[in-house]
Amino acid sequence: MSHAPLIHALVVTQFAKMLANLGAFLDEAEKFAAEKKVDMAVLLQARLAPDQFSLMQQIRTACDTAKLGAARLAGRDADAPVHADTEQTLAEIRARLDSVVAYLKGFAPDAFAGAAERRITQPRWAGKTLSGQEFLVEHVLPNFYFHVTTAYAILRHNGVGLGKKTYLGDLPYRAAA
Amino acid sequence: MSHAPLIHALVVTQFAKMLANLGAFLDEAEKFAAEKKVDMAVLLQARLAPDQFSLMQQIRTACDTAKLGAARLAGRDADAPVHADTEQTLAEIRARLDSVVAYLKGFAPDAFAGAAERRITQPRWAGKTLSGQEFLVEHVLPNFYFHVTTAYAILRHNGVGLGKKTYLGDLPYRAAA
Repeated sequence: MSHAPLIHALVVTQFAKMLANLGAFLDEAEKFAAEKKVDMAVLLQARLAPDQFSLMQQIRTACDTAKLGAARLAGRDADAPVHADTEQTLAEIRARLDSVVAYLKGFAPDAFAGAAERRITQPRWAGKTLSGQEFLVEHVLPNFYFHVTTAYAILRHNGVGLGKKTYLGDLPYRAAA
Repeated sequence: MSHAPLIHALVVTQFAKMLANLGAFLDEAEKFAAEKKVDMAVLLQARLAPDQFSLMQQIRTACDTAKLGAARLAGRDADAPVHADTEQTLAEIRARLDSVVAYLKGFAPDAFAGAAERRITQPRWAGKTLSGQEFLVEHVLPNFYFHVTTAYAILRHNGVGLGKKTYLGDLPYRAAA
C-alpha cells in the first residue's frame, strides 16, 4: 500500500469538509450581521492586526492552499481552476469555496500514487523543491489550518457565535459494540 | 508499506517542530513584553473572545492534543506524561512544551504500525470510537493546528511581531539541480 489513500483523505476529503465548515462560519456570520444590522462587508474586511490578512483574504488563501496543495501533490498543477482574488461579496466567496470543493472531489485516491516522493516546487521558491511528503506535512497542512483557524478567530473576536463543532464538523463516531 | 512512517511524520516529527515554533512565539512575546514594560502574565492570559481559551490554555491544549494524539494512535495512552494544567509562568509552560517534545521523540515510526485501523476512543466520547485514520485526519490534526494558530493570533492581535516563518519554521528545501 502506498500513502496515496491517506494523502487523499488528508487533502481531498478532509479539506473539502473543512471548506464546507468555513462556509458554515459564513452562515453564522451572515445571521450575526443581520441581527446586529451591520454590513457583511465589515466582517469580510475584519482582521486581527493591521498587517494580517482580512477574513476575505484568509478564505481565499485557504482555498488556494487546498487547491494547489492537491494539484501539486498529484502533479497536476496545470489543471487547477484559476481564481482572480477579486471577490467582494459573500456570494462571490461562497462561489469560490464551492469551486474548490468541486475541484477537490475530482481527485481519486490513486491520483496521489508516488506523491510522497515527487519533487514539488512553486513559483516563489525560485526553483528549490520539497519532497511531496515534506510539502504535505510541513507546508500544506499547517498553512491550510492556519487560514481556516484565523478566519474562525476573526469571527469569534467580532462576536460571531461559533463553536468547536462548527470548526471540526461532524465526526464519524461508531457506537460502542 | 503501511502508513506508519507518514503518521509518524505528521504527529511526531511535525508536532515536535510546531511545539518548538510555539516556543519561538513565546520568545518574541517575552521580548515584546520587556520592551513595552508589560507583565508577561498579561499576554499569557490574553484571549480573543471572553468565552475562548487564553493563550496559556491554548498552549496547554496544543500540548495535550499532540501528546494524546500520538499516544492513542500508538495504543499507548497509559504512558503519556500527565500535566496538571496549573502552569502560570512562562518558565512553567516552556517546561510543559519541552516535556511533550521529549515524549514525542520517544516514538519510533513502527510505533504506528496498524494505527490507521485501530479503534480509538477517549473519555468524553462515552465509549464511541473513531478509526485511527479518522481520529488523525478529522480530529488530531485540525485540533492541533487550531490551538497553535489561535496562540499565534492572540499574540499578533496584541502587537507581537510574528510572521509566517515563525509559524512554519524552517523548511527542508533542496536547491535546484
